[in-house]
Amino acid sequence: MGSTYDVPESNVDVLIVGAGPAGLMMATWMAKCGINARIVDKRGTKIFNGQADGLQCRTLEIFDSLGFGHRVWRESNHMLEICLWNPDEKGIIRRGDRIPDTIPGISRFQQVVLHQGRIERYFLDELKGCSDLEVERGVVPVELTIDVSNVENVGACPVTVKLRHLSEEEATPKQSATSANGQAVQDGLFRSNLTADDTAELLKVTQLSSKADTEEIVHAKYVLGADGAHSWVRGQIGLRLEGDSTDYIWGVLDIVPITDFPDIRMRCAIHSANAGSVMVIPRENKLVRLYIQLTTTEKIGEGGSKADRSKISPQVILESAQRIMAPYKITYRKLDWWTAYQIGQRVGTKFSVHERVFLAGDAVHTHSPKAGQGMNVSMQDTFNLGWKIASVVKGISSRSILKTYQSERRRIAQDLIEFDRKFSRLFSGRPAKDVMDAEGISMDEFKKAFEKGNMFASGIAVDYGASMIVAKRGDTSDQGDGTDVSVKDPKLRVVSDQSLAAGIEVGKRMPSVKVLNQSDARPWHFQELLPSNGRWRVVVFPGDILKSDQKKKLGEVGKAFESADSFLHRFTPGGGAFNEVFEIFAVHMAPRQSVTIFDFPSVFRHYDEVDGYDYSKIYADDASYHEGFGKMYETFGISDKGCIVILRPDQYVSYVGPMEDTAAVNSFFETFMLPQSHRNEPPAVGR
Amino acid sequence: MGSTYDVPESNVDVLIVGAGPAGLMMATWMAKCGINARIVDKRGTKIFNGQADGLQCRTLEIFDSLGFGHRVWRESNHMLEICLWNPDEKGIIRRGDRIPDTIPGISRFQQVVLHQGRIERYFLDELKGCSDLEVERGVVPVELTIDVSNVENVGACPVTVKLRHLSEEEATPKQSATSANGQAVQDGLFRSNLTADDTAELLKVTQLSSKADTEEIVHAKYVLGADGAHSWVRGQIGLRLEGDSTDYIWGVLDIVPITDFPDIRMRCAIHSANAGSVMVIPRENKLVRLYIQLTTTEKIGEGGSKADRSKISPQVILESAQRIMAPYKITYRKLDWWTAYQIGQRVGTKFSVHERVFLAGDAVHTHSPKAGQGMNVSMQDTFNLGWKIASVVKGISSRSILKTYQSERRRIAQDLIEFDRKFSRLFSGRPAKDVMDAEGISMDEFKKAFEKGNMFASGIAVDYGASMIVAKRGDTSDQGDGTDVSVKDPKLRVVSDQSLAAGIEVGKRMPSVKVLNQSDARPWHFQELLPSNGRWRVVVFPGDILKSDQKKKLGEVGKAFESADSFLHRFTPGGGAFNEVFEIFAVHMAPRQSVTIFDFPSVFRHYDEVDGYDYSKIYADDASYHEGFGKMYETFGISDKGCIVILRPDQYVSYVGPMEDTAAVNSFFETFMLPQSHRNEPPAVGR
Repeated sequence: MGSTYDVPESNVDVLIVGAGPAGLMMATWMAKCGINARIVDKRGTKIFNGQADGLQCRTLEIFDSLGFGHRVWRESNHMLEICLWNPDEKGIIRRGDRIPDTIPGISRFQQVVLHQGRIERYFLDELKGCSDLEVERGVVPVELTIDVSNVENVGACPVTVKLRHLSEEEATPKQSATSANGQAVQDGLFRSNLTADDTAELLKVTQLSSKADTEEIVHAKYVLGADGAHSWVRGQIGLRLEGDSTDYIWGVLDIVPITDFPDIRMRCAIHSANAGSVMVIPRENKLVRLYIQLTTTEKIGEGGSKADRSKISPQVILESAQRIMAPYKITYRKLDWWTAYQIGQRVGTKFSVHERVFLAGDAVHTHSPKAGQGMNVSMQDTFNLGWKIASVVKGISSRSILKTYQSERRRIAQDLIEFDRKFSRLFSGRPAKDVMDAEGISMDEFKKAFEKGNMFASGIAVDYGASMIVAKRGDTSDQGDGTDVSVKDPKLRVVSDQSLAAGIEVGKRMPSVKVLNQSDARPWHFQELLPSNGRWRVVVFPGDILKSDQKKKLGEVGKAFESADSFLHRFTPGGGAFNEVFEIFAVHMAPRQSVTIFDFPSVFRHYDEVDGYDYSKIYADDASYHEGFGKMYETFGISDKGCIVILRPDQYVSYVGPMEDTAAVNSFFETFMLPQSHRNEPPAVGR
Repeated sequence: MGSTYDVPESNVDVLIVGAGPAGLMMATWMAKCGINARIVDKRGTKIFNGQADGLQCRTLEIFDSLGFGHRVWRESNHMLEICLWNPDEKGIIRRGDRIPDTIPGISRFQQVVLHQGRIERYFLDELKGCSDLEVERGVVPVELTIDVSNVENVGACPVTVKLRHLSEEEATPKQSATSANGQAVQDGLFRSNLTADDTAELLKVTQLSSKADTEEIVHAKYVLGADGAHSWVRGQIGLRLEGDSTDYIWGVLDIVPITDFPDIRMRCAIHSANAGSVMVIPRENKLVRLYIQLTTTEKIGEGGSKADRSKISPQVILESAQRIMAPYKITYRKLDWWTAYQIGQRVGTKFSVHERVFLAGDAVHTHSPKAGQGMNVSMQDTFNLGWKIASVVKGISSRSILKTYQSERRRIAQDLIEFDRKFSRLFSGRPAKDVMDAEGISMDEFKKAFEKGNMFASGIAVDYGASMIVAKRGDTSDQGDGTDVSVKDPKLRVVSDQSLAAGIEVGKRMPSVKVLNQSDARPWHFQELLPSNGRWRVVVFPGDILKSDQKKKLGEVGKAFESADSFLHRFTPGGGAFNEVFEIFAVHMAPRQSVTIFDFPSVFRHYDEVDGYDYSKIYADDASYHEGFGKMYETFGISDKGCIVILRPDQYVSYVGPMEDTAAVNSFFETFMLPQSHRNEPPAVGR
């Protein structure tokens, strides 16, 4: 095993360790951007049940940008309302309040629940549809070394990883082993989660290749450790998690409930007077997940020590639920999955070493599952990282942008732990008996926290700090996790004028309402125009182009964008597609029927000798026949004077500025993009 | 070949000849209802390009009820606006008017365009997902006989068909041969229609089974001839089409246009002063279909004789288009498909013989493709027929309902031809020069016809006449094609009280707005609750159940439905699922938050010992958090006093009547349903 003289060696741009949601998100970016990547996982199959999680509306927006949001939306259970149940004056639980689960208006999606196995299926289908990238299962890394002398050499492969291909026995741990605290239900009573497209995969299980029991050496430009809470990669690069375990123990039951509790299909927070709390999460296929508090406030062990879980069984957890939910009755005949856990709240000290090996997901943050954040934050880690690495590998961007990953995502993890601490305390505590009961939790306070938490939990509140790719005021270290990601050259420093579009907030994801395609009057949610393909978008809002000054300014923007020294020309490789790096949009507010695409500069309607004009880049903020009126200018406070907006490939807003300042757009990209050689072929820019 | 002594014989409930859209729709019903069926087609593969057609909003509703509406909606091109271009006073074409392509508010879908090969793909995927039914390609019927003495014997297989399995050479006619007038584009320049899921099928083409060049005998209870305009089945049963060819010749080009015509992505009707007319139909993938008039009003031949098409080429058709669309320029580099045709307008004299062999689709009606009706009406034929045959084969209904197929669908075909005659004349005629030009077509008249035609063309206007399954006033022969489909026993005759729900029109498809699930507050379009699974729905609208009289009436409806002599008990087989034949819904108008499902009789929340309560049958007409308010009672004029509505398995409204008259509901079903034996097990009806 240790000898290497006949071990095959190969190079790869990106090696992904771990094929859970974070790893699959990374792989999908690589596939969409055409990057040479591999993804390995020690497990022999994907997971098939349990490990459900809520999906934030932001996560659904991201899935939609990847091409499978509609599949999740159809198959998942939608959560619309939260019911808060508290003890009344006699100590009997009653419904005290109702609040919407997703704050109305923040997204075109609402929170839903679907088990992780289905999410993984959609990623795998999407990968198959757009690339040859496949998960290599039953493969574990056994050595990782970094050639530190070479890490700043852009084209180098400074990370060397030895991979071992497992034998079938090693690669097929029982399903239960995938959840550290859990145990698979063995009676086979309930297998409804095995939908047709998974069954085939389960049957062939690990048809391990002829490589079983062999090793190989991979030289990678970049490595991602998305290998979970016990991350092997994290250990190899000497990073660790900081934080504590809490004292609360929770049981989880996934059951088809038989109950007279009237809100069993709502998300519920039930605080009993003395028996603890239950959270109800209704799921797909009549399943309901119950999070059940197994102790109230007494400690099980001292300090960070773990509780004795050997005595916990589904029956014990169910009986706790029955005590909490009395006088309502609850039982089940179908149990899909169960577990019990003690909450650990920890964040990684760093998210990468040398911006060559990165960590994401549970490998760098752990927290309570009840806030419905886990899978979301993990996938959003690599949704943030993937396009950046792709852009660097392709030679479009300099390595400097890679520092923004830690700056942006470690800060999010820190905020999440902070939120989780507050939320868990409120949820696990005993309800106050009255206003004098200082040790108890005020139910008013709880409701307020829930409402506030909902904004955080939606994922929409994410606001990335100032950096070379987020042009806003302030100190980049303060606004991130402390990493310096500022623009070094003061001449290139660009600051947004947020007043030109107050609702398109720099640092947040681009919000969305419907706009009409100028050429065919079809309404699109603006975000639908922003699929995850690695491209930057420059969106010009020219206002009402029937006004001569606005029309004139638009003409000048067109001229500037088309000129030989524009970002479009300088940073788009010669010979490639016109829109390989940038897509240029216009959203105007003249009546749609009063103009045609020929009223716009040619950069907005690129002409191709074979395919004719591009009809997909000019939109009108005008009424639709069947789907109402988005009123984008009004809703987002876009100035009559117009503005230019820059969007990152992950839909976050980089910049908002005046139409007159096309120089600022050039400067913005100049700070991190690499000029492309054009040989003899300038990119064709309209005609 | 002629000898039969070693020819295998078998029985089947339903044999479908032809795997185009009409045949596939029939097969899908059989699969959804669990009927033993076979579907054969002489072609070796499904089609891959050309033969596009508009899809009506009603067709999209039907697709949605089958489970693949969302796939069509995503992939198709949506048509939003029709632009009418006419000659101005100088004879130059200009845009004279715009109208919405789909009348706002009539459906939750709008008209779209997608080529037939994709539609067939979705049917095939759906079949695969819910059954073992597969299209047997390269199989042709060669003999068909009917044992007339046995046709009224319910369980008999009176139709005998000899099938021949073709050799590979016979079964793989070139693509071009599938369109009688067309010709495949051979240069392979454009293959974008070959999406991934089709490519695999194309590669394996006709892996004809080992049965090639053999024959077999099939004894069928029912046979469907969905084998196109030259229907072999029609010939065998001695039926024929009646009607004429028109004098107009049209060319069709499917191209990626290169043009400065500003409305090329709109549906356009372009009337030139003297060069004829063009209809523009924008399609998916930048394709545009042009219907181009090749002659104006002069006759090519005399009477019904066919024109000489040997001189027609894509270049000839393009040049016609260029003359009509001048001064705008139009050309192409990508040609996907082309054809030319002379319009024939014909309807079958009968749609079945002995209600044992049926015809559908092009086999019984042909007309102009420009009205965007062809594929829609064909699929709707078998959408009408399928559930009826399934119900008879399963022993739920008597054979009497089968007569309603011809009564309902032949009348539709007659109306369609009538519409098509008017529409074609208006479209093919020369525009009037002024009000004195009596030979020309008035553009005002044209616009009005277009607007009126849009309602017809949506498919929503379909209004089936009175019959044993449509309880409305009037003579069944007058309201249909002349067939007598009346209720024979006057004691069982039931008539609706349309005033209780003016907007839920008996004979039309159930309209749809959003309602909220009582248990989880999720909004559903009402039609989404009516998937095509062969079940009848009885929908109780109890009004505001906080009012004691309404609550009391609801209780009595529950009691009546649950009693041993109710339709629910008598016509549901013992031992089967509670909802095997009927689904019972309630849509109330009390505030959602003021009631729970336990305020409703148990028939609306069926209890199962393993799965608990059914949470999917009680809905509130109340505001949603994120999707507005459907206002179903207000929109459809549903009385405060409430009502009971019966819906057919194909979503058409059978009956509207008062809550007090549960006896009428029993009588309605009594006329055509067969009492079921219950042995020792009555169906479980709530608890």
